[in-house]
Order: sequence, then C-alpha cells, then structure tokens
Amino acid sequence: MSNYYSNDQGPLDNLIKMLGSLPGLGHRSARRIALHLLQKRDKTMLPLARAIQEAADKVETCNACGNLDLTNPCKICTDTRREDGKICVVAQVSDLWAIERTSAFKGTYFVLGGLLSALDGVGPEDLKIHNLIARIDELGASEIILALSATVDGQSTAHYISDRLTGRGLEITRLAHGVPVGGELDYLDEGTITTALKSRSAA
Amino acid sequence: MSNYYSNDQGPLDNLIKMLGSLPGLGHRSARRIALHLLQKRDKTMLPLARAIQEAADKVETCNACGNLDLTNPCKICTDTRREDGKICVVAQVSDLWAIERTSAFKGTYFVLGGLLSALDGVGPEDLKIHNLIARIDELGASEIILALSATVDGQSTAHYISDRLTGRGLEITRLAHGVPVGGELDYLDEGTITTALKSRSAA
Repeated sequence: MSNYYSNDQGPLDNLIKMLGSLPGLGHRSARRIALHLLQKRDKTMLPLARAIQEAADKVETCNACGNLDLTNPCKICTDTRREDGKICVVAQVSDLWAIERTSAFKGTYFVLGGLLSALDGVGPEDLKIHNLIARIDELGASEIILALSATVDGQSTAHYISDRLTGRGLEITRLAHGVPVGGELDYLDEGTITTALKSRSAA
Repeated sequence: MSNYYSNDQGPLDNLIKMLGSLPGLGHRSARRIALHLLQKRDKTMLPLARAIQEAADKVETCNACGNLDLTNPCKICTDTRREDGKICVVAQVSDLWAIERTSAFKGTYFVLGGLLSALDGVGPEDLKIHNLIARIDELGASEIILALSATVDGQSTAHYISDRLTGRGLEITRLAHGVPVGGELDYLDEGTITTALKSRSAA
C-alpha cells in the first residue's frame, strides 16, 4: 500500500520533507504544520506561499555589510546619521538584528557569515575577512567592535580577527562578559561568574 | 528609523509574521527560519514556496472520511481490500495517519474534525456527527472504534458518540488504556497505572 503520509514522493510528503528540513523543525512538527496549512488553505497556506515568494524576490543582501534588506546597500549603510567610524562585526544577520533591536549602537555593521570552527571545518577563507578589511579602509573606521558569541568558536574568531587587524591603528573591542541583566547568580555557570567577578566595577 | 527586523510591514516582516503563526513556532523561531530561507534562496526558499503551492493545489479532503489525499474519495476509502464493516473514528487527520502508520487496522476511518470541548466552546454541532451516522449507514458498518485521545475532551466526545449511536445494533469499542509499550512504570501517572491494573490480563 502506498503511504503518502509516510514516504512516497507525492506533494504532501514533499511539503512535509521540505518543512522538516528547516532549522528547529523535525518530521513530527513538519507534519503538524503541513496539516495546519492544508486545513486553512485560503487563510494561511496560499498567503504563506506568496509571502515566501515575495520575500525571495524583494529581500537582498547588502554588498557593503552583509545585512538583509529591501535595498542594497541596506538602510543602515545608507543612513547618514550612523557613525562610519565604528564597525560592529557579527557572525550572522540574526546577531545584527539582535543588536539593532537594542537601539544601543549607532555605528555600522559587518556580517562575517559564520565563525571559525575546527569541528565544522570553517577556516579564515570561508569568512569575509578580506571584505571586512576593505570595508574598514573604505569607511576609515577607527573602532572595531567584535560582537561575537561567548563560545569557543566565537572567541577564537575574535582572537583571529584581532590578530589580523593589529598594526592598523584600530581600537579593537569586545562585548563585556558578565551576569545577564535579570539573571540569577544561582543559575549561572562558574565561567560567567568568574568573568563577572574579574571584571567587577565600582558599585 | 524603520525596523524591518521588528515590526514594519515589509515582505520580510510579513514572512516572519506568517511563519510565527504556524503551530509550534514563535517569533524567534520564525525569524530563524526566515533567515535560513533567505540565505538558501535557490535550494530551500523557492522550492518550499512551490511545495506549498503544489500541495495546496493537489491535496483534497476526502468527502467520505475527511482524510487528506491526492484523490477524493481517498486511497483508503477506494481500497477494496479494506473492511467496510469497521469504522475507526478519529478527531484529526493526524490521528488517522498515526493509526495508519501502524498498519494494524484494515477498516475505514472517519475524521470528526475535533473534539467536544466546553472550554473551547466546541459543541456537537461543530463536529461531523451527522456525517458519521450517514457514513455508518452507507457502509453498513457493524463496529465503530472510537480512537480518541485519553483526555477529558476525548473521553467526553467518545461518551457522547456512544450515546448517539446506541440502539443501532453497532458494536462500539474504544482503544485500550494502559502502560505504553516501552514505558517505565516509575514515570507513569497514577491514572494510567490504575487503569492498567484494572484492565490487567492473564500473563
């Protein structure tokens, strides 16, 4: 018997397979979403297909910083009120958005496109480090903020970039490590507490 | 400043909003999926839009049982090897698929389209109980298996349907309750253990 709900090649299985390959979704959640879509065809399914198509057509990658936007260069790169002197280096577009949501940074960005990773075989040539250097020269930037994750990969990438940029008279900074705002000490790992202690400031 | 990554009405926000309204996905996972799609436009994004469109075009609801399939009536309803005498009543298409994956049932199905729920305001008129009765008459079924969840809503729906079907000379059965296969007693709730004890069988 042919089981379209398990593994033949029909449109339903294809949809479930495609949904299941998205980050954070497995086969079971993909099946649930596919059923939800099919049960709300006009209100959800066709609008979603159109939304995906429209975003694919209209969203571009900014050649200057790597951000995703409706224009290229992006809104941030073309905003004359942003400080060209500070470039915040992030691994992914999602990190750029996370920082931008804080409204705490008024400089420009550069998206590396990943982190160095020995395990995943990502070397310096896989990241846009040449483009970063070109961008620094183009903007005449004076400060580079390495806003990379506090993971082994993030920190080794930060270290590598710092090394590559020495001798250019740039101020190179990193995000502070410490207790997250709202975080309870009891739930924090020893590494964070040690760092927070070492970097303590006057109360 | 317009923040397409938070809440303006551009195609990117629209995509994130639509993804975030799917079951099991929140705003954060929707953002992650949208970024993933935009970064793999040709390999993932456009094929997904096409897969959704194709499934919307080709997948139909079976008028006989409520299953979703590429044909109407569905493969199960048109399969002459299935026993017309047994109808397995399920709440949702996903339950039908779950039973079908076991290959343990060779009868036909009927999808109610939900469960009675006082909390959600779902009454008998919201379920396809009339269609179920018509389907029973049409097939001349002799056994109705109520394969509904072991929740309050599932059990009250089973009770209601049992009541509605009495006097028709039908055998009405339910799924057995007990210890799940592979389940450890220590992790089971008291209700399940009590039921499993009461329904114990010769070893």
